[in-house]
This record gives sequence, structure tokens and C-alpha cells, in this order.
Amino acid sequence: MRLYVGLVHYPVYNKHRETIASAITPIDIHDFARLGKTYGIEGFFVITPLEDQQTLAHRILRHWISGYGARYNRHRKEALSLVSVVSSLEVAVKEVKEREGDSAIVVATDATLQEDRAMSYEALKRIVVSNEVVLLLFGTAWGLHEEILQKADHVLDPISGRTGYNHLSVRTAAAIILDRLMGVSAD
Amino acid sequence: MRLYVGLVHYPVYNKHRETIASAITPIDIHDFARLGKTYGIEGFFVITPLEDQQTLAHRILRHWISGYGARYNRHRKEALSLVSVVSSLEVAVKEVKEREGDSAIVVATDATLQEDRAMSYEALKRIVVSNEVVLLLFGTAWGLHEEILQKADHVLDPISGRTGYNHLSVRTAAAIILDRLMGVSAD
Repeated sequence: MRLYVGLVHYPVYNKHRETIASAITPIDIHDFARLGKTYGIEGFFVITPLEDQQTLAHRILRHWISGYGARYNRHRKEALSLVSVVSSLEVAVKEVKEREGDSAIVVATDATLQEDRAMSYEALKRIVVSNEVVLLLFGTAWGLHEEILQKADHVLDPISGRTGYNHLSVRTAAAIILDRLMGVSAD
Repeated sequence: MRLYVGLVHYPVYNKHRETIASAITPIDIHDFARLGKTYGIEGFFVITPLEDQQTLAHRILRHWISGYGARYNRHRKEALSLVSVVSSLEVAVKEVKEREGDSAIVVATDATLQEDRAMSYEALKRIVVSNEVVLLLFGTAWGLHEEILQKADHVLDPISGRTGYNHLSVRTAAAIILDRLMGVSAD
């Protein structure tokens, strides 16, 4: 399976639906990397155009991959080795193309149903299992900007629990989605 | 469904398998509450005997339930209203009994398979769907102490991804487990 994951920090929305670049959340980088390692994804992109935020992300990675953290917890090193820091979705797409030879099908995630281009978990799972290259995007803050949703080839169905409440953190949403797509019980 | 979730801060293990009381992680309280609200659980217990940690947990809850946070984000208020802070597993069990009339089946989670008393997702799902009262326990730090595993009626199978890597954060593990048990697609 050739699944890549991207965590988008720009462009995303804030609470007032204004376009912003969000700050890096170190715990998200760790949680996504550990999830990625568990489910065997090929790579995880932290996407931010802000140079100080790229520097922060690199500092975290250095600590856990070659600094004290690597000796303190080698499992964390294994997971964080999946991470690349890139400035935009376009750079992530280009990097996946270079690594895989094939272009990725870009699939965005959103907490509300995008009627016109929704994709079900079953449909995306079939694509992933068929070994096509997929780049799955998650939005920080109040979610992916419309511009990213438009650029994506598909938008995955939102997670529906049992209550209509749809305000999960991005790291727990990613956990649920990766398990639905890649979990062994999902085969 | 009468599912309760408990996040245990004592007794748990540290990296060196020593028994410790872990510190409250505010992000875990938020993530568990939001997950609980999404999947319609009845209540979420933060379990810690440390009084300063109980005070910290209460301060977080106050901020989001009646303080500034409640006005800033009402969705968070809704979720955090699920949370109770209790000093031990026994108090949580007693509180569930008082609320439900029936005693809870206590199910622990662990990253390694407990051969003798393992319970599959399918089996636990049947119990949950049949409307029996269940208290599902998660461990912070390096996981639930043997003493808690022994007190539990069952230990849920570990999450297996695709790689043998089993070092998820407790909040992402809880997300995956609640979706497997309570997700609508899991029916």
C-alpha cells in the first residue's frame, strides 16, 4: 500500500472562517507519526509555509531522531523518521511523485459532507488496497480551506459517530480514518 | 448503550515498569470528552488519587463548562460536561452503579495481548449493543498496572495495525477503539 498523509497548516480556517496559517502542534506530529508507523503508511508531510514553524518542526524531529530523544525512546525515533516538512501541498505532491513514480490521488478530509465529490470509506479503501498512490490530507485549526478541497480529487466522508456531534481533534479523527482504511479488521 | 470510559492515572507504569501516578494531560481530557460526545458514551472518568491533579482537572472543566471557554467554544462545553474526576477505579465503579442501577462489566485495554482473559472487539461490541453497562479503562504513561488488569473482568485485544508497531498515544488508541465498538459503520 502506498498511502501518504499530509497535515495542512495553511490554508486552513480559524473559528471565524478566516484564512489562516496555524501553528505547529508538537503532539500532533508525534501522534500522526505513531499512527503512520502503526498502519504502515509510506510518509507523513507536515505542510506549512511559515519558516519559523518549519524550523520548530525540524527541531522536534532532530531531538527525537538524532538527539537525546532518540536514546530516550527509540520507538519515537522509528515513528518520526516518517516525517517530512514541506512548504505547500504542491511540494508534497511533487515529492510523492518523485518517490513513487506515479502521481498521487489526493483525498481531502472534512467534518462536513461535500455532496458533489464525496468518497466513501469503502471506495477509498479499495483504491488504497489496489496499491494506487494516495495522499490523504487533514486540516488543522477549523479545517481545510475550500481551496484545498477544490484541489483534491475527492473528499472523504466525514466521520459520523452516533450523536451528530462532529468536533473531534484532528489527531483522533486521523486515528479513526487510518483504522477504517488500513486496519486489519477492515480487510 | 451504557458505555462509560475511564482514563487511569494511578496505578500505571513508567518507562522502567515502576508503579507511578501520572500527571493529568489536558489535551487527553479534551480529546476523550470530544470522542465520548461523538460516540454517545454516558460518562468519562478521569481517575487520579492526587489532589493537586484533581484540582487541575476541575480547573480545566470549570474554564470550559462555566468560564470563558464556555462562551468561546460551546461544543467544548458540551463534550466536557461528560467528565467526572474521581480518586480511584473503585469510586468510578460505584458511581456507575449508582447511575445505572446495574454493576458495570469492567474492561481494561492494553497494548499487549493478555492470553488468559482477552476479549475480542466483536465480543465486546455484542455486550455494548445488548445494553449491558460497560466501563472501559485506558492507561496513561506506559499503560495500566497489572493490578488494574487483574481487577478487570476482561482485557480487550490490543490494536493491531499492519506493522507490529504498537506505540500509539492513549488518545488515538481510544479513538480507534470507540470507533470499532460504537462506530455506525461497525454495526
